[in-house]
Amino acid sequence: MHTLYYAPGAASMAVHWLLLELGLPHQLVSVDLEAGEQKRPEYLALNPNGVVPTLLIDGTAHGEAAALMLHLADSHPGAGLAPAPDSSRRAEFLQWMFHMANAVQPLFRQWWYPHEPAGANHADAVRAHAEPRIAAEWDRLDRHLADSGPWLLGRSLSAADFYLAMLVRWSRKMQRPGTQWSHLAALAGKLKSRPSYAVLRDREGLDEW
Amino acid sequence: MHTLYYAPGAASMAVHWLLLELGLPHQLVSVDLEAGEQKRPEYLALNPNGVVPTLLIDGTAHGEAAALMLHLADSHPGAGLAPAPDSSRRAEFLQWMFHMANAVQPLFRQWWYPHEPAGANHADAVRAHAEPRIAAEWDRLDRHLADSGPWLLGRSLSAADFYLAMLVRWSRKMQRPGTQWSHLAALAGKLKSRPSYAVLRDREGLDEW
Ligand SMILES: N[C@@H](CCC(=O)N[C@@H](CS)C(=O)NCC(=O)O)C(=O)O
Ligand SMILES: N[C@@H](CCC(=O)N[C@@H](CS)C(=O)NCC(=O)O)C(=O)O
Repeated sequence: MHTLYYAPGAASMAVHWLLLELGLPHQLVSVDLEAGEQKRPEYLALNPNGVVPTLLIDGTAHGEAAALMLHLADSHPGAGLAPAPDSSRRAEFLQWMFHMANAVQPLFRQWWYPHEPAGANHADAVRAHAEPRIAAEWDRLDRHLADSGPWLLGRSLSAADFYLAMLVRWSRKMQRPGTQWSHLAALAGKLKSRPSYAVLRDREGLDEW
Repeated sequence: MHTLYYAPGAASMAVHWLLLELGLPHQLVSVDLEAGEQKRPEYLALNPNGVVPTLLIDGTAHGEAAALMLHLADSHPGAGLAPAPDSSRRAEFLQWMFHMANAVQPLFRQWWYPHEPAGANHADAVRAHAEPRIAAEWDRLDRHLADSGPWLLGRSLSAADFYLAMLVRWSRKMQRPGTQWSHLAALAGKLKSRPSYAVLRDREGLDEW
């Protein structure tokens, strides 16, 4: 049994989505980020960074969205959402997971929390810089999908695509949402039309996108 | 055979270190970051992000330092530097790898490239904010090592410790280097005294630290 601490549409969303895709029994605990529940002692005991997601696996708390996605995909090889550790596609798969975790998701953190890099006085400058930097990431990702898509790993859908679709969703209110890039739009559109997304949307109350 | 494109002390360092630890035959190609070699077309063909490291594995180019560390450790289970995919420690291991990739390494990127988040005018503000944010990460990591060390996974040395030692090294010129936290200092000190570090230091010409 898994228990996911989540907030609607947050980094927990892709973990929730994989739990549904993999058909794993789980319960949800909502964390009210606006009320600051993620910084209360009870929650910090589970997640010392004070962020969502946290996933209890057999009673033990684990964090980091991308780590959880990778672990869930690896633990259920039958679903085929991660190349096996000895597969020739494995390095490529890990490269995408870490590229999104290291280079793309942190840019969104800057956009959502623009006071963090340089203080509240410079929040506007941070936001203004984040958008073109994210666009540059979309350029490279879209070019990759154009050359070698339709999924990040070519013909094989993987956990990395769910991660990417979440990031594309996060850009929906930017001047140039990721869906303005045609291959990103196609990838996100196909994932949104899966039955798992309808359940995810209802459960998290994701009214838009 | 592996070929590593590297710059001394850069994110390629931990990959180089694991190649040495694992005893894997490899050749090195140095990339002159100051001369901008990482943005030349020949290199961008290998690494579209224009950063080091790139590792050629059987002739195919792969990027992302943390992905490469994980992949090398997983591919050589005999060395015991990664809990097996079905191990009960696996989620914890992946959590550390992604925590460093998603939350810690990006703060260093802000410190080394302070013009990126908000433009050259605000570079000083970014640098000034990065240091206490990195210190907050050291607080949490050091507390974890105090409670459950001496390594990130307790009694088992893993690839995550080499990654952490590299990050600690990157803080050596900050007002409060990571080595001011006693458990981080102990971890880094033990790794630096391994024979692999002496070879790494000589090969990359890491004169300090
Ligand atoms: N490294 C974490 C970061 C997660 C993260 O930034 N979560 C955000 C929501 S998308 C959060 O919890 N923010 C609340 C806060 O920072 O106080 C992960 O990838 O799981
Ligand atoms: N996500 C990449 C980031 C690597 C990175 O930032 N490398 C730096 C050196 S530590 C670099 O190549 N900088 C040159 C540049 O950005 O032009 C990884 O983890 O491999």
